Amino acid sequence: MTLLETNRREMLLGIGAGAALSVGSAAVAQAGGGGRKLGYAIVGLGSYATKQIMPRFKECTSSQLVALVSGTPEKLTRYAAEYGVPAANCYSYKDFDRIRDNPAIDIVYIVLPNSMHAEYSIRAARAGKHVMCEKPMAVSVAECEAMIAASRKANRKLMIGYRSRFEPYNREAIALARGGHVGPTKIINAEHGFTAKPDQWRLDRAMSGGGSLMDIGIYSLNAARYLTGEEPMTVTAVESTDKSDPRFKTVEDRIDFMLKFPSGIIANCVSSYNSNHNRYRIVGPNGYIDAEPATAYEGQRMTIRKGDATMPRVLPAGQKSQFAGQLDHLSECVLADRQPIVAGEEGLADMRVIEAIYRSAREGRTVRMDRA
Amino acid sequence: MTLLETNRREMLLGIGAGAALSVGSAAVAQAGGGGRKLGYAIVGLGSYATKQIMPRFKECTSSQLVALVSGTPEKLTRYAAEYGVPAANCYSYKDFDRIRDNPAIDIVYIVLPNSMHAEYSIRAARAGKHVMCEKPMAVSVAECEAMIAASRKANRKLMIGYRSRFEPYNREAIALARGGHVGPTKIINAEHGFTAKPDQWRLDRAMSGGGSLMDIGIYSLNAARYLTGEEPMTVTAVESTDKSDPRFKTVEDRIDFMLKFPSGIIANCVSSYNSNHNRYRIVGPNGYIDAEPATAYEGQRMTIRKGDATMPRVLPAGQKSQFAGQLDHLSECVLADRQPIVAGEEGLADMRVIEAIYRSAREGRTVRMDRA
Repeated sequence: MTLLETNRREMLLGIGAGAALSVGSAAVAQAGGGGRKLGYAIVGLGSYATKQIMPRFKECTSSQLVALVSGTPEKLTRYAAEYGVPAANCYSYKDFDRIRDNPAIDIVYIVLPNSMHAEYSIRAARAGKHVMCEKPMAVSVAECEAMIAASRKANRKLMIGYRSRFEPYNREAIALARGGHVGPTKIINAEHGFTAKPDQWRLDRAMSGGGSLMDIGIYSLNAARYLTGEEPMTVTAVESTDKSDPRFKTVEDRIDFMLKFPSGIIANCVSSYNSNHNRYRIVGPNGYIDAEPATAYEGQRMTIRKGDATMPRVLPAGQKSQFAGQLDHLSECVLADRQPIVAGEEGLADMRVIEAIYRSAREGRTVRMDRA
Repeated sequence: MTLLETNRREMLLGIGAGAALSVGSAAVAQAGGGGRKLGYAIVGLGSYATKQIMPRFKECTSSQLVALVSGTPEKLTRYAAEYGVPAANCYSYKDFDRIRDNPAIDIVYIVLPNSMHAEYSIRAARAGKHVMCEKPMAVSVAECEAMIAASRKANRKLMIGYRSRFEPYNREAIALARGGHVGPTKIINAEHGFTAKPDQWRLDRAMSGGGSLMDIGIYSLNAARYLTGEEPMTVTAVESTDKSDPRFKTVEDRIDFMLKFPSGIIANCVSSYNSNHNRYRIVGPNGYIDAEPATAYEGQRMTIRKGDATMPRVLPAGQKSQFAGQLDHLSECVLADRQPIVAGEEGLADMRVIEAIYRSAREGRTVRMDRA
């Protein structure tokens, strides 16, 4: 298949729920209103912000890094120098609300521990800013609903950092799965996990809201939802945590879950803090589509079995990274007044299922989402 | 790894529960007492018996085909001619019990629909014959227990047709998994399924006792048990069957299940009559072992990821087929008065879990095996 065919099919299939995903410079120029770059403030200068997000602004066509928020003055000094951010655009958490008075900041990107997502997203919306918030959106359905309400009230956009939706192989997998490339999807296996190192906020429930599911298992869950385009009807989960392991005093290690979707698709998902997984497989009557690694920062690979042939699927190189694609998508949505394809409602939908997964594992029974 | 190393490790690890698996002509000659071949009667001349089992006797060193049992005279005539079986050694179901008087028959291999396994296994034991019975062993735990009791009372062997235990890649996977090749096993994914054609006994509960789980899902279950060497503590299952599909009026289509083992290993298993799967993956902290196809009649392939390298594992060609290995194993056990590595107790262990899987799916809750 040629790139043209791929793009054409994606256009026809309309990736995303009710919103076209603009990809490539032509679309950006169109959406970006002649190249205006919206200003981002990054809130929380941890490893993901500084190593994955901030270096990608140089790829962006509609987004630029203009402000930093951190509780550590040394980090502000260091990254302000590295990215040419003026001292006036550096904030502590204490004076965070002063971003209201800074017109250079259009969008606030929350990259804090999960338990702080709701508070800072809501404060950003109240300060009149659009919000990008890392996943998981928050630590409860109630918090997600409060965040959506705050952004609506402020008439500002709210988007969740589901970067895989801007990654070419994942977009291809969505198109192939929903387009029935191996027939109508029957089963999805989605597996995500890594070996958690001790002594970090992810392992402290007060900061993280939960264990592997909140952190890496959410990739399995979100993939099951975006590959099907459906919401699960029932959730069945089993947790397995060695409570004598000092890492898992307050959060779960492994939690595996099965989702049953209205069309009959079953998703069989792994979430683990004690083994390495990064893959999904979409099974249809005529074969399967494998992605491994599926949702890594880079290096995605896809293999398709159809009929009796098993072949790698290689997409053209040189496309915009998922990180830059994610950043620019919100900018373009702001400029064109469109709803992001992964708005707050998407984070809320995941959180509803996450709460059902925890409940199912706790109660040892299948949970129906309409009664969750 | 050389063949020598492989065999040496298998010897050291002692594949199977308390019984060494003899492989290769030297072991056979030793066990076989100078080359005596035991006589098999095949009961049920369906596709599996005639296409997979009967053609493999020519590979056997301790087994030979000497008798046939069928309700269809044309089949008896045809296969008796093809395999040189005398007319006196051909039986209908009506005169099945006369095998008692035929000293040429040492072993009776039951390849009938599942609901007939118990009856014919018990009648064969009462006729003084050793029994090989296809899997699933029967359609209930109670039947399995009755079969074991009948063979014990008759002082005859009872073995279940778990051919994968005699297949080189599966033996390798057991050795690697239990030997910690990628560290202690954390998660096993086992997926088996195929697209069931309509109008066959497998889809009639009165004959089959159940749907995909009884037929192909048992491979996922049995693999989870033989790869861990443990019995599950809890079982959580979800069934998904389109009852409007005429194939699934009386049996289940898909039933997925999670098993939690005492060491903490989780097995995440697929069983499907509506999509094609034949694989398992063993995940440890240092990588994974993939087998796909894992339990097919032939063509097994294995891939191992360890550290940062992903490599195929290719075993030496020309080994005895799993079918011949299975047939000869029971003959050798009879000759040496040893318990088969997949005796009736192995079929019973699977059936206990199968009943728990159905119960979990029916009741929508996790079932503890000690209360099952």
